[in-house]
Amino acid sequence: MFDIFPVKGGLSVVEGFYCDGVNVGIREGTQPDVAFIRSDNLCDVSATFTTNKFQAAPIKHYLSHEENFQTNFILINAKNANAMTGKRGIEDIETILSAIPKNLQPHNPLMSSTGVIGYPLPKEKIISAYAQFDFQAKNSDAAAQAIMTTDSFKKELAYKVELSDGSVFHIAAICKGAGMINPAMATMLCFITTDADIPKADMDSLLKQSVDQSFNRISVDGDTSTNDTVMLLANKQSGVYNKEAFSQALNMLTHRLAMMILEDGEGANKVVAFEVKNAASEADAQKAAKALSNSLLVKTALFGEDPNWGRIASTIGASGIDCDEEKLVIKYDDLIVYSKEFPILDSEREAKAFEIMKQKSFKITCDIGLGEASFLNYGCDLSYDYVKINADYRT
Amino acid sequence: MFDIFPVKGGLSVVEGFYCDGVNVGIREGTQPDVAFIRSDNLCDVSATFTTNKFQAAPIKHYLSHEENFQTNFILINAKNANAMTGKRGIEDIETILSAIPKNLQPHNPLMSSTGVIGYPLPKEKIISAYAQFDFQAKNSDAAAQAIMTTDSFKKELAYKVELSDGSVFHIAAICKGAGMINPAMATMLCFITTDADIPKADMDSLLKQSVDQSFNRISVDGDTSTNDTVMLLANKQSGVYNKEAFSQALNMLTHRLAMMILEDGEGANKVVAFEVKNAASEADAQKAAKALSNSLLVKTALFGEDPNWGRIASTIGASGIDCDEEKLVIKYDDLIVYSKEFPILDSEREAKAFEIMKQKSFKITCDIGLGEASFLNYGCDLSYDYVKINADYRT
Repeated sequence: MFDIFPVKGGLSVVEGFYCDGVNVGIREGTQPDVAFIRSDNLCDVSATFTTNKFQAAPIKHYLSHEENFQTNFILINAKNANAMTGKRGIEDIETILSAIPKNLQPHNPLMSSTGVIGYPLPKEKIISAYAQFDFQAKNSDAAAQAIMTTDSFKKELAYKVELSDGSVFHIAAICKGAGMINPAMATMLCFITTDADIPKADMDSLLKQSVDQSFNRISVDGDTSTNDTVMLLANKQSGVYNKEAFSQALNMLTHRLAMMILEDGEGANKVVAFEVKNAASEADAQKAAKALSNSLLVKTALFGEDPNWGRIASTIGASGIDCDEEKLVIKYDDLIVYSKEFPILDSEREAKAFEIMKQKSFKITCDIGLGEASFLNYGCDLSYDYVKINADYRT
Repeated sequence: MFDIFPVKGGLSVVEGFYCDGVNVGIREGTQPDVAFIRSDNLCDVSATFTTNKFQAAPIKHYLSHEENFQTNFILINAKNANAMTGKRGIEDIETILSAIPKNLQPHNPLMSSTGVIGYPLPKEKIISAYAQFDFQAKNSDAAAQAIMTTDSFKKELAYKVELSDGSVFHIAAICKGAGMINPAMATMLCFITTDADIPKADMDSLLKQSVDQSFNRISVDGDTSTNDTVMLLANKQSGVYNKEAFSQALNMLTHRLAMMILEDGEGANKVVAFEVKNAASEADAQKAAKALSNSLLVKTALFGEDPNWGRIASTIGASGIDCDEEKLVIKYDDLIVYSKEFPILDSEREAKAFEIMKQKSFKITCDIGLGEASFLNYGCDLSYDYVKINADYRT
């Protein structure tokens, strides 16, 4: 039917899109701090945003547009979130976007920001980027670097999708996020571009479903930022589309990026899948899986590689779901560490559990034994470095 | 009307109660690990327990008694929670309690445990304590030491209450708890004794109200253990009682112990009061105050003494309550760090905020500006030491 090939080059592989990143001195050093993404053709755009009530100014600015508006330009800056900045925050965006060179024919240009809350944007610095950008560049690497904050590596991905008739479209993304990541909400910044000839209705429905299965399934620290944005831009330039192929490529893209965010979780050393199965209800399964991903005692036990399943059980019991210690079964990968039949973790099985926990990634399964509902969520450990990164963040 | 005097001696000041603590080798070294509290007279008993669904065996054992039962003996061990131990857990308690020396005439003896989940009690070691205990001792210090786990200091308190006619009763407690402390639930272990001639109905209502205002208002890490217990034992031996005086003394006792737990929060350096006021509803005020106490980003900013009020605002916005950034006012002690009128924290006010944050304890107030509901909750910072203590807990 179709083939999906991972390809190098990030955003640069998508037809008709251009991007670049430059340093204008918002951050020290030479790493880019402002990026643009633009398209020759006007793009349809879909987005999901943070559930935080205090949405940042760029999100309010986006939402002030008419439904189904099109755009051909996005400007992104790091190190300043433009959140809790009131009317001035919106005015600053308008000032900055009105200075985009006219020869680019900007149409409903958008802005996105990430960084510290509560300070006005450094307008002049950001505007100075226009003189530095190469607007004909396809410099995905620089754009991906520009949007990093506490990220320790840049996050970009691209896929080429080839249909059975040999026709081709592309989908690609850059992404940032390493902390302040919480499940069940939109999350971090992610900009996805495609040249597929996708209808706007499919963009909306497929993006929502894809984000629910990826970025909404991960937790680094249980906090939810004011700026979280996932945006999909489609310039239709390939003239090619297949819904199933697009959906599958989009899901691969968002799942892989979500795992990259977790791998880069602030101070994290491990990615752990928490599966809660056979819960009495979907809500219970989700509540327990997210409680496990967010428990400090579970996260520190992961860091310590301590097969202390009691903390898993205690977190299930405290999560407020229906549960029964006689029915509960806890597994690390395929090893049962607790069930009514094996209530004591003997030294042999404990040694096996320890081996499993030493891996960079593994799975903890809690079979509640009361129903048929399941939920899979991904988390990471909590290390000294998380504390260090977040105690020192602004300095 | 009455006077309440703090007095030294912990549990030993209360008439007719005896206690001791000894080391039987459950923990290394010489620090006691098993304690008893007993009374000459039979005691009425009230208790509040964890909301964790997986209640430990000692809690199930307590709840298996008839309503309004009386007791004269409690045995407490540290280092093993006797939780997730199934029927064996209950049988072990019965075995251990049946070995109490008969000359003490044990009546409905009780047990309480704290420590690691999922291992059977070391029965023989615990039973060996009976030969070491001095059952005529009033050794509150040893009992308070015996129930410590990750606590860095022992927690005991006592008050003498003198009524206007010169009559006197006493109330005292020992307590443990330094991590796994979450608001809105019973919490940690606390044993309160009194010789006041208090009716059972008052014991139940005053204990519940007092726990709601103290132990249910603090958070160290947002986790809730399987063993949390607050127990009040009254042997009525003084023959003296005044409801208002007792209530006030009990509230002082539980509030002070709750603050001691926070001061001893695992790795904690500061106690911070989070007051959410003028919220649209009681539920909103409570939800936001508890979200602030539990946010990793807020807790690490407290550790870093970083006046980054954006994390406070972001947590309020993410908590799911009704809020409006134009109405929100955030204060550190009396200093406004955010309001619509002062959106930018200039360097002078930032320096003041930094001075406030350097204190061992201070208050963060969030005025939501949408209603009249308030909630006060207490939290602490999150440091490297929290991670260290909890990554290494079992070893």
